[in-house]
Amino acid sequence: MKEKLFISVIGASKCSAKEASLAEEVGRELGKRGAVVICGGLNGIMEAVCRGANSEGGLTIGILPGNSRNDANQYVTIPIITGIGYARNSIVAKSGQAVIAIGGKYGTLSEIAYALHDKIPVIGLGTWKLATGKSKDESIVIAKDASDAVDKALKSIGQGGENGLH
Amino acid sequence: MKEKLFISVIGASKCSAKEASLAEEVGRELGKRGAVVICGGLNGIMEAVCRGANSEGGLTIGILPGNSRNDANQYVTIPIITGIGYARNSIVAKSGQAVIAIGGKYGTLSEIAYALHDKIPVIGLGTWKLATGKSKDESIVIAKDASDAVDKALKSIGQGGENGLH
Amino acid sequence: MKEKLFISVIGASKCSAKEASLAEEVGRELGKRGAVVICGGLNGIMEAVCRGANSEGGLTIGILPGNSRNDANQYVTIPIITGIGYARNSIVAKSGQAVIAIGGKYGTLSEIAYALHDKIPVIGLGTWKLATGKSKDESIVIAKDASDAVDKALKSIGQGGENGLH
Amino acid sequence: MKEKLFISVIGASKCSAKEASLAEEVGRELGKRGAVVICGGLNGIMEAVCRGANSEGGLTIGILPGNSRNDANQYVTIPIITGIGYARNSIVAKSGQAVIAIGGKYGTLSEIAYALHDKIPVIGLGTWKLATGKSKDESIVIAKDASDAVDKALKSIGQGGENGLH
Repeated sequence: MKEKLFISVIGASKCSAKEASLAEEVGRELGKRGAVVICGGLNGIMEAVCRGANSEGGLTIGILPGNSRNDANQYVTIPIITGIGYARNSIVAKSGQAVIAIGGKYGTLSEIAYALHDKIPVIGLGTWKLATGKSKDESIVIAKDASDAVDKALKSIGQGGENGLH
Repeated sequence: MKEKLFISVIGASKCSAKEASLAEEVGRELGKRGAVVICGGLNGIMEAVCRGANSEGGLTIGILPGNSRNDANQYVTIPIITGIGYARNSIVAKSGQAVIAIGGKYGTLSEIAYALHDKIPVIGLGTWKLATGKSKDESIVIAKDASDAVDKALKSIGQGGENGLH
Repeated sequence: MKEKLFISVIGASKCSAKEASLAEEVGRELGKRGAVVICGGLNGIMEAVCRGANSEGGLTIGILPGNSRNDANQYVTIPIITGIGYARNSIVAKSGQAVIAIGGKYGTLSEIAYALHDKIPVIGLGTWKLATGKSKDESIVIAKDASDAVDKALKSIGQGGENGLH
Repeated sequence: MKEKLFISVIGASKCSAKEASLAEEVGRELGKRGAVVICGGLNGIMEAVCRGANSEGGLTIGILPGNSRNDANQYVTIPIITGIGYARNSIVAKSGQAVIAIGGKYGTLSEIAYALHDKIPVIGLGTWKLATGKSKDESIVIAKDASDAVDKALKSIGQGGENGLH
């Protein structure tokens, strides 16, 4: 059963309505295409992406920082209770075959860093821009909208493009 | 969707044929009753319980110590890639509403300790016996067979007994 | 500078006066013999062992579960702020060359389990007794008092016995 | 004894000779001013900063990702053996009262992110530049050389400037 697709979606627990709407659409697209959503399980971007995925019958995994399953947003199908605080960010990053970053604050930045460290493709929607010294780091693949982000995430792991998984 | 049942099944990556058979039956019972199996995702007890659950269409979560999804046994539906080594044992314990321990070595003992610390019910099948000073610690509920273990696990979280979840 | 001795001392944050006194004496003995004390950094056994070590000028490392250095007891020389909750127990166990367990509840049991898993010698003073199936597990070396515990811990790592490190 | 100063120094395990020389000077300055160096305990920047601190009699803490104290560079006074892989980056960040980042790859970026998330001051020497959307993130305080970095780190925690701790 391991041929399933696992896509991590990362972003802050507080976000704008526009970002939430983008996250929800990413969730719907992932649900439609049969991908399991991995996220941090809390509110904001995490809740919106789970809501979208759920509306299409998709599975959602919430990797929680705290000690209670009640911390999970209501659209999390499977709560993982880590109890390791924000060190759980590395688990969120590692558990996806690709990562979609939406907006984001420093927690999201740590997840992007972990994903890039592990050579996991990162697709960005209005997220961090990185540079070292005089040169830009262009490892984050910029997407233009939710559907494009999901296309690019699936393509990055060899799973078809605009027409889904054919 | 959070009303699902989550039962952690713990035990060593090397086990006897008899223990594996017991674990597989525990997996089948959990699958039949609609519970999601949480485990460490590797071999031995973990593989056997996942095989059993899969045979009944149950979901299995493998919380892996390493950095690769390829470490998961083939019956893991959803691999969680922690990269935190055996510190992941606390996540395996915490993520279940109840824990079933089968046989087991020191890794299993650490998971039992974490579960009891968090007041998560632990059901034992041929596992550790604990005592401090002169008094036995009787926190582990002893089960007589696989079906009894699953009954006791579900009862411990208020989910019916011998007749399952009706 | 790595030839230093590192001994982890484990036990609960609530303990009897007798256990605290034992822990303090263990700390003094370790301090006298030049060993660095590793512990969980909180109260009870942890505070007592640090107080003892400090009184002899010994270094004490407190591996804290939370996010604030203010959680450390006042005898911790070097607080390590893990933020990973009780998953930090595996770090406390691993960072010692030998472990001395005094009394203890389930947290202590998890640390004993991690140490034995890693083949780190565990010396016990009124701590857990373990058994599997019909056979006792005698991996924990029983000490008769504080000085004996320190002797046994240092001997277990090839560092002299009753007469210290001469 | 908790009035000690703890400064985390972060950077990659592979670095240029120029970066290593900068790190060594940072270590010497920290050692001179009585600050304890916290780092990841491995090679490159980590080894250089420990070498510098050691040469001035400073204490160095190496928070290792793996399971063996032998992974520590030879200038680590106190190895902490986490066994949690690169999730230990959050511990390196959290354990400092301020963080000095020298050069750095994605691991360093994750540590910067954790520090900024926790509102721990970050001083940069030729390290990452961050931006979100159209605006630069100027949370990293840029230093012009090793001595300036140490001044800024100590000032950021209210501990004097160019003339040390007076």
